[in-house]
Amino acid sequence: MSRHSVVAGGAGFVGANLVARLLQRGDRVTVIDNMVRGHPGNLAGLGGPGTLSILTADLADRRASTAAFREASARQPIDDVWHLAANSDIPAGVADIDVDLKDTLLSTIEIVRQHGEVGFRRLLFASSSAIYGDHGGREIREETGPLLPISNYGAMKLASEASVSAAAEQGLEQVFIFRFPNVVGVPATHGVIYDFVHRLRQRGDRLDVLGNGTQQKAYLHVADLVDAMLHVAEASLSERRVVMNIGPVDSGVSVRWIAERVVARVAPGATIRYGSEDRGWVGDVPRFRYSVARLLATGWRPKLGSEDAVARAIDEVAAQLGA
Amino acid sequence: MSRHSVVAGGAGFVGANLVARLLQRGDRVTVIDNMVRGHPGNLAGLGGPGTLSILTADLADRRASTAAFREASARQPIDDVWHLAANSDIPAGVADIDVDLKDTLLSTIEIVRQHGEVGFRRLLFASSSAIYGDHGGREIREETGPLLPISNYGAMKLASEASVSAAAEQGLEQVFIFRFPNVVGVPATHGVIYDFVHRLRQRGDRLDVLGNGTQQKAYLHVADLVDAMLHVAEASLSERRVVMNIGPVDSGVSVRWIAERVVARVAPGATIRYGSEDRGWVGDVPRFRYSVARLLATGWRPKLGSEDAVARAIDEVAAQLGA
Repeated sequence: MSRHSVVAGGAGFVGANLVARLLQRGDRVTVIDNMVRGHPGNLAGLGGPGTLSILTADLADRRASTAAFREASARQPIDDVWHLAANSDIPAGVADIDVDLKDTLLSTIEIVRQHGEVGFRRLLFASSSAIYGDHGGREIREETGPLLPISNYGAMKLASEASVSAAAEQGLEQVFIFRFPNVVGVPATHGVIYDFVHRLRQRGDRLDVLGNGTQQKAYLHVADLVDAMLHVAEASLSERRVVMNIGPVDSGVSVRWIAERVVARVAPGATIRYGSEDRGWVGDVPRFRYSVARLLATGWRPKLGSEDAVARAIDEVAAQLGA
Repeated sequence: MSRHSVVAGGAGFVGANLVARLLQRGDRVTVIDNMVRGHPGNLAGLGGPGTLSILTADLADRRASTAAFREASARQPIDDVWHLAANSDIPAGVADIDVDLKDTLLSTIEIVRQHGEVGFRRLLFASSSAIYGDHGGREIREETGPLLPISNYGAMKLASEASVSAAAEQGLEQVFIFRFPNVVGVPATHGVIYDFVHRLRQRGDRLDVLGNGTQQKAYLHVADLVDAMLHVAEASLSERRVVMNIGPVDSGVSVRWIAERVVARVAPGATIRYGSEDRGWVGDVPRFRYSVARLLATGWRPKLGSEDAVARAIDEVAAQLGA
């Protein structure tokens, strides 16, 4: 029998890419998504007859969560639960802590609770480098502490990690905590590339950039991200709680570099105007060095570095937005 | 004008001891407590006219929390908020994640939200060594990671730390995260000493101990704990987020040592029967070495080591329970 993988948030950006790969390798997949940032259209054409099931449910709601997991489990006992359901909009959570509390943490807590109801073998959680907070130029390894997030987004991702970790004690065979870097690709709903392309579509002669453009970050293409997770999940690691930074090997590209590339692709000749701050918004960590030594030790290598990932994503997002 | 300190959970075990000290040094104090584990009687006789105000409110409830903070703020603008409101019963949270979610995390999130409503200068949070999880024999410093709690109690304390950390970015002058060790003293409501005395009061000839008794832990007397927090809070530390392990300097005492002392004090001659496991319950970390180097660097010293703290607490708890 095929492996049955549930993907919470499976109709979103990373989720839809993961679902495509899981189906490709032969899993039966059940997507549970509240369809707020996700969209069923992102899964159009995926899977053969009976391989993909899509449930619309708000996982932060206990009743809806219970019903969805019962339905998924009735289809076939669940092996893996990939938890990618979350608020992915950092500024939205700055304005209203309830966004991250509900969409990120409470969905995690309800998923953990469903383990007690229907049972599953493994829980694989999409965390974020935002849990680390601002460590200046220091290289961030999985063991780096203290963990002092500077956004509600990062705080509720860390809270979710904690909840997943505690759940490992209560009958889960193994849990995975994947700490995501900045991820680019399509179907995009937010992020620096989407934002720049979107704004140049609205006003083609000028691009206003939050911050002074010197912020340097590493970017991973979503295809590499999904590839890395699938690799690590099958790497037969012995720990019951696997914590893993996922990212490219390089030190990243600057916002200025991205702005110039987007302008060249979408609106050549447009003026770029920068702000004066070294960070773009509250909760934005201006620079970090992100160790992926542990990931590389599993034998995985990214196909694209930050530059190539961003360049490819600019083309993809431009096509997505018809620019 | 006196400093106005709000103590969330101020009618509980640590809270009542803290309130007494704050009043002694001349603060105006407002206690906000849901009176579930706390009790107004714990504050009986404290403070002079107009110095202590006690509000009964469930801080996890937004409406109640807002009303309580408005009332406190109307009394006098708030300087410090000491957040000690939490579930303190680890096994209760194992059985039902909602206990720690609501009483520990949601109360934190509502307190952070109240900062946006009424404003205050500093937030001082009572965290726990349980956020570290099981690091075996490795010495645990504030920088130790990854943070992989093994109980919902530890998970929701870590989640609260994360929320407090993010709040520092949004206008708080300074936040303190105090990581508590095992704390002993009165008024006790739970914990190993309370449990042993209580059971020997019910059946004086035998004491059944969970686990094999070899668990070795450091214990701090509540008087020292409060003293340490007050010291650190006034130590003019420069970080906006102060993270501090609080504990004694020694390596602690075993459960067996405690059991024998309690029997000798409360029911001499009673038989002690041990279990076979090296931990007492799910979520119990069997042993850890806890670095307090950072605390000692502030110039603070505990008055009592683990042995003396436990011995004094046994007398106090025995008196409290009339044993």
